[in-house]
Amino acid sequence: MEKADILIYGCTILTMKNREIIKDGAIAIKNSEIVFVGKRASASGIHAEKKIHAKGKVAVPGLINCHTHVSMTLMRGIAEDKPLKIWLKNAIWPLEAKLTAEDIYAGALLGCLEMIKNGTTCFADMYFHEEAVAKAVKESGLRAVLAEGIVENENKALGEKMFKNSLFFAEKFMGYADGRITAMLGPHAAYSCSQELLIKIREEASQLGVGVHIHLAESAEMFKEFEKKYGCSEVEFLNQLGFFNAHVLAAHCINLSENDRQIMAENNVNAVYVPIANMKLGLGAAKIHELASLNVNVALGTDGPASNNTLDMFETMKVGALLQKLAYLIPEVLPACEVLKMATLNGAKALNLERNVGSLEVGKKADIILIDFSKPHLKPLQDIYASIVYSAHGSDVDTVMVDGKILMENRQVKTLNEQAVIEKAEKHAAQLLARKP
Amino acid sequence: MEKADILIYGCTILTMKNREIIKDGAIAIKNSEIVFVGKRASASGIHAEKKIHAKGKVAVPGLINCHTHVSMTLMRGIAEDKPLKIWLKNAIWPLEAKLTAEDIYAGALLGCLEMIKNGTTCFADMYFHEEAVAKAVKESGLRAVLAEGIVENENKALGEKMFKNSLFFAEKFMGYADGRITAMLGPHAAYSCSQELLIKIREEASQLGVGVHIHLAESAEMFKEFEKKYGCSEVEFLNQLGFFNAHVLAAHCINLSENDRQIMAENNVNAVYVPIANMKLGLGAAKIHELASLNVNVALGTDGPASNNTLDMFETMKVGALLQKLAYLIPEVLPACEVLKMATLNGAKALNLERNVGSLEVGKKADIILIDFSKPHLKPLQDIYASIVYSAHGSDVDTVMVDGKILMENRQVKTLNEQAVIEKAEKHAAQLLARKP
Repeated sequence: MEKADILIYGCTILTMKNREIIKDGAIAIKNSEIVFVGKRASASGIHAEKKIHAKGKVAVPGLINCHTHVSMTLMRGIAEDKPLKIWLKNAIWPLEAKLTAEDIYAGALLGCLEMIKNGTTCFADMYFHEEAVAKAVKESGLRAVLAEGIVENENKALGEKMFKNSLFFAEKFMGYADGRITAMLGPHAAYSCSQELLIKIREEASQLGVGVHIHLAESAEMFKEFEKKYGCSEVEFLNQLGFFNAHVLAAHCINLSENDRQIMAENNVNAVYVPIANMKLGLGAAKIHELASLNVNVALGTDGPASNNTLDMFETMKVGALLQKLAYLIPEVLPACEVLKMATLNGAKALNLERNVGSLEVGKKADIILIDFSKPHLKPLQDIYASIVYSAHGSDVDTVMVDGKILMENRQVKTLNEQAVIEKAEKHAAQLLARKP
Repeated sequence: MEKADILIYGCTILTMKNREIIKDGAIAIKNSEIVFVGKRASASGIHAEKKIHAKGKVAVPGLINCHTHVSMTLMRGIAEDKPLKIWLKNAIWPLEAKLTAEDIYAGALLGCLEMIKNGTTCFADMYFHEEAVAKAVKESGLRAVLAEGIVENENKALGEKMFKNSLFFAEKFMGYADGRITAMLGPHAAYSCSQELLIKIREEASQLGVGVHIHLAESAEMFKEFEKKYGCSEVEFLNQLGFFNAHVLAAHCINLSENDRQIMAENNVNAVYVPIANMKLGLGAAKIHELASLNVNVALGTDGPASNNTLDMFETMKVGALLQKLAYLIPEVLPACEVLKMATLNGAKALNLERNVGSLEVGKKADIILIDFSKPHLKPLQDIYASIVYSAHGSDVDTVMVDGKILMENRQVKTLNEQAVIEKAEKHAAQLLARKP
């Protein structure tokens, strides 16, 4: 008889390796890894310390949020229904200038709590005081790819300092928290860093073997300004610098030319589709179908909670699908199973984690969520992918596991004290608003 | 000391009468009506049989879903990611031809259960065997405005029969279930009913004193066909028939000309904005800002669960706001408090129920929901309207009351047996699919 730590049984399983649907399935986990996935009947020889009877539930890989600024939970609701420039300049930047590492930690804890409760098991973050985010991630039990942001804004000394911080962070936190945390470098955008700095970032990232997380082609307005200044698009500009020679995670990708898309495809740039924040800030719709047709890997992100206003990947999956159908006026575009793939396997690939997570396969890390399909809005069950993307909510997630460790069971979070996390975040949000610049 | 049946106290109250926010408020209910709304301190003299301590919760008027076909819960997930014509012709119509009153009843019960659980207290329905929907509504405790659908499709005898059924239904069910159910006539659309029939429907509706619920300007393709046939738009056509002389509830309103909008404004036509289904079927974005600027009353609807795939007005509020910001590329368009007004007061007006519901005011019926603001994704609370529209989910609704009767408390539904309703719907959905045409 084989031994496992945990055996989940009786559920339907979407492995996301392909379109396989395993009914009355079982998943066995040992030492943080998946050691069996298949029919329950074939798992009868597996003995486990802990058994989870999951009848009526659906097991899918934990959702992967590929672009956020998690500590912006503190600024949720601060500046509503505003354009990007005003939102940034009048509300967000003045607050960010006052943020302390303790604020970031409090905000990140709240964000991690929210993500556990909505079935997100891994996220890519780019912000400041990222060590505080790492600390929160470690405590929460989540997996994350963190990048200390670099914003030069024509201040060379500042750029240099932030670059060094970003590098220092990546060196120190690559493989942190039993390997659940990996790192990237985080240049904010092509328009907010100089050519020299972008080249240095690329070189150092490649040397360190880490990726680069950047905002790309987010705003048509900035796109025009950039074109005027450099005579080419952001993508062409970065390409000329050799910026795409190694792993890049590019968030937004709204305003792209055909040539831009070609460049991204040729260089295996990973695009993150951020539908809700893009709509909320009135920025437009990324044309995902064109990118995917060129085999660009497209993942999904929520963006920070100040422009969404949640960290809920179920919402993002639904709105992401809806927005593509609208953008093309073709309802066949981006069908449900493709969206779920974006939120799982494509996400893992975008974060350079596809060997470890993104699908439910033997040998991969056990990052698994169970969705409770007993709710009225999930009945009757006639198309499981459509049910997950168009009907399910984050609150339907019943159990969350990362690295084989249960972070939530029956909606009870095991790793964080909910009330304490909320109170801490409320305190820091209030202090941040009241703090003198 | 005044006596009330129920006293809700300690919550924040959004009355939706105006932008008033009452903190530490109280609402007293007697004989199905609101008899007090104000500060808790001013309610100390009110004695009530039942007291609901609602600290940390927010009271808003129950949400009003102004366009659905509730029994289509049975077809949830049946035909995904398909264009409207194919969706209708290959999947929906063949199933609808086989629907029995018992199926409709089972589907409606499931829809009512789902709506109670997501804070919808009133809905406008148009479908077939509407008596069965009325029965489900009565049992559920919800409020509804029901219309038996009329589809002529160039079959005069069929049109006549359905018209008579619609009329018969309206006469019989106007004021049913202690007045919680009112009726409308339900011509499917301008293109699916003849001129003669539309004129008769208008006349009979006016004579009966009921409104008319119709699909309007939903599909650009059909719009073109219609223009070719009649040399004018659907709106112009209906206007020429005198169809807008009395109360009309017009769902979709996507493809409108400036002249169409003017006609709607002049005739007080109520528009229902249906963002999710319109996106999902790739039909386009209704231009709500233009309609609202002309003082057209705009309400919100989910459409049937086969094209959404939920009956969740929280989702519809969020996606509705996002879609407008995208359609205009202006993030200020349709701010959060306007969306919540659409889902409450505007909805009541659209259903000719504004004297009874849509806001929390003394003398109105007690259709109230309490939203639990203790969840991580609703923290910190910095903009209450934005929190409700952009962060809250249907599952955050804790308590639902209609006509002063508690339908759900602490997420426990009082009027329906959840398990029995779900099993019945599953059984009927399976039978419907298996049934020979």
